Amino acid sequence: MTTFPASHRDLLDAQTATIGTIGDDGSPQLTEIWFLHDDGELKTSLNTGRVKYRNLQQRPQCSLLILDTGNPYRYLEVRGRAEIEPDDDYSFARKEGEKYGGADVREYDAPGTTRVVVTIRADKVHAVDMSG
Amino acid sequence: MTTFPASHRDLLDAQTATIGTIGDDGSPQLTEIWFLHDDGELKTSLNTGRVKYRNLQQRPQCSLLILDTGNPYRYLEVRGRAEIEPDDDYSFARKEGEKYGGADVREYDAPGTTRVVVTIRADKVHAVDMSG
Repeated sequence: MTTFPASHRDLLDAQTATIGTIGDDGSPQLTEIWFLHDDGELKTSLNTGRVKYRNLQQRPQCSLLILDTGNPYRYLEVRGRAEIEPDDDYSFARKEGEKYGGADVREYDAPGTTRVVVTIRADKVHAVDMSG
Repeated sequence: MTTFPASHRDLLDAQTATIGTIGDDGSPQLTEIWFLHDDGELKTSLNTGRVKYRNLQQRPQCSLLILDTGNPYRYLEVRGRAEIEPDDDYSFARKEGEKYGGADVREYDAPGTTRVVVTIRADKVHAVDMSG
């Protein structure tokens, strides 16, 4: 289980996080995602048709930044590796959807794609507060 | 000059942006930074003692994400390469500081370090609005 500092634990319930992955050309790509703090870890439900899924499959190194939208000088950065597991029965997708008012993430999914659960296995946690 | 879509131009004046760089170990690193939309480009003043400066010197590929803190489903992602120029007289640092109430960025700098201007030469601009 990843330890998150008490000063920044509220951010684990934020609406979105920014995930940084590495593209085929070696350049960083940033995307805003839904996520869930579940079982002590940061997890996200990804559609297998998305570029960020293919990036993580090829290069599991990633970083997640959760910004305090009320104070953008305060944030949590979690660097690590993405562990990818199937979510063929959409049980994690449903669990994540409960955080978002029961949203069904599958309604955005293209035909022929499925869902996976990505768990961030953290190497480093940076809790930053530059607001003084 | 980079073209930013009219729908997201307000974000060019946001307080902070998230920059994604690549570390020596090949993994993405995300940091929240001050920036300035200056002369049609996104620029930031970096201290030469910082890891993100050394990352960009070695691997100029980077991505900047500017989040609408009032609506985190709306953001601008700018992918490109960092062009680094010296700012030995701190003229850009001062110009950026004016955006932040005349802040003097040098007060955070370690002795023996200097400042550079990083200009993001954009390859791709993604203007995202998932708020429907």
